[in-house]
Amino acid sequence: MKPDAEFLFRLADAAAHESLPLFRVPLEVDDKGAAAFDPVTEADRRAEKAMRDLIAAEFPEHAVLGEEYGASGEGGSCWVLDPIDGTRAFISGIPVWGTLIGYMEDGRATMGLMDQPYTGERFWAADGAAWLDGPRGPSPLKVRDTQALSQANLFTTTPRLFKGSALDRFLALEGAVRQTRFGTDCYAFAMLAAGFVDLVVEPGLQPYDIVALVPIIEAAGGVITTFSGGRPEAGGDVIAAATPALHEAAMALLASD
Amino acid sequence: MKPDAEFLFRLADAAAHESLPLFRVPLEVDDKGAAAFDPVTEADRRAEKAMRDLIAAEFPEHAVLGEEYGASGEGGSCWVLDPIDGTRAFISGIPVWGTLIGYMEDGRATMGLMDQPYTGERFWAADGAAWLDGPRGPSPLKVRDTQALSQANLFTTTPRLFKGSALDRFLALEGAVRQTRFGTDCYAFAMLAAGFVDLVVEPGLQPYDIVALVPIIEAAGGVITTFSGGRPEAGGDVIAAATPALHEAAMALLASD
Repeated sequence: MKPDAEFLFRLADAAAHESLPLFRVPLEVDDKGAAAFDPVTEADRRAEKAMRDLIAAEFPEHAVLGEEYGASGEGGSCWVLDPIDGTRAFISGIPVWGTLIGYMEDGRATMGLMDQPYTGERFWAADGAAWLDGPRGPSPLKVRDTQALSQANLFTTTPRLFKGSALDRFLALEGAVRQTRFGTDCYAFAMLAAGFVDLVVEPGLQPYDIVALVPIIEAAGGVITTFSGGRPEAGGDVIAAATPALHEAAMALLASD
Repeated sequence: MKPDAEFLFRLADAAAHESLPLFRVPLEVDDKGAAAFDPVTEADRRAEKAMRDLIAAEFPEHAVLGEEYGASGEGGSCWVLDPIDGTRAFISGIPVWGTLIGYMEDGRATMGLMDQPYTGERFWAADGAAWLDGPRGPSPLKVRDTQALSQANLFTTTPRLFKGSALDRFLALEGAVRQTRFGTDCYAFAMLAAGFVDLVVEPGLQPYDIVALVPIIEAAGGVITTFSGGRPEAGGDVIAAATPALHEAAMALLASD
């Protein structure tokens, strides 16, 4: 038996059951960062645990990779979980965090979901179709047709993650686009799929930061790769673009020689 | 007859009636910026017009200052309106924009409201009390008791607005706090009042960017001044802090000699 979109929704419901009651509540914030502040809360841990329990019950033969509890199991069917992508936003009360649930077969992301339970928005993709189920009802996700950098709306969570020559290249891209915004984590990828953002670049991602978003971007018609043009499932430096032309133009500025 | 909180709510309802149907809709984006991109849409214009019409009908003797239609009228009673604070977020589909409605008597902000109609959140203050009316019902707004910069959660919309020595001072503050986030406009001030953000600094504000937020911050127990310690109603470089100790510590880094 293969998992389907209904199972994605069950996982998202299980995570939201844990995370949402802890949003906008004073929480103990632990710092798991070695070099820099890297917050984690009981909400992250409980939400991932709830999803792992459900996967173990329904698909015990599947592998799981999660931000908080690491890798377990083996084989070609793998769940990739970030219980709260944007913990910094979560602990600040800002509703741009999301629960990321990705599913890979043989290393390729085939289903994905991003859930924002406070706004009641669920962005998801399965079988090559991408949808937003939100307060206004279901609607298909479709990128917009921006072709030129000079018209593009660029997002990255924080410019502080670009260092050295990578920062120089990011600043060149920032100088070429119409608007740059910061502070969004997964939410900017969702808005790219929805047709309101044209470029998202994020350096140093982990697989659990991106696998869930790959099928959503691709099924909405966008392009998502590493900065060197490869598949993004393993993370690293990742760029998503609304159109192939924008992807090519941004890559010309971002890619190292 | 003096305006009351019920009239604030009527203004917010009138603005939301215009702005919300245009959120997440492809819009013509005009650029009103001289030097840099400064987006404005039909949603900004219609929402301000709706509020100005209501004020003219109910309080024709009051002055009005709005982002899109400027200043009108004279006298000690003045409405200060930003129909969409965070137009860049609005056109990107990110729900951290807000409608700002401030009321001043003799230059002092006495009532204010920040409305986020997509999330159904209304942050407001009148008669010295501050409230959030949101999807979880009404709750009083109260800052938290953070005392040390090393424990503080700092927000600014974008570090790109700090230039020259002001940037050096901002970077010193960024280096002293626990976490810095970007990309929020008015929403970070609301979360400071709600007790999840400790410091918000924004350079170069206009009165319509801040007057509505001043009573909310103050009634929630926070401190809000210019970088030189003066009243913030005229805008400029503004700092809001959860506690007097944090305000003093941040000012020591931010204020120019």
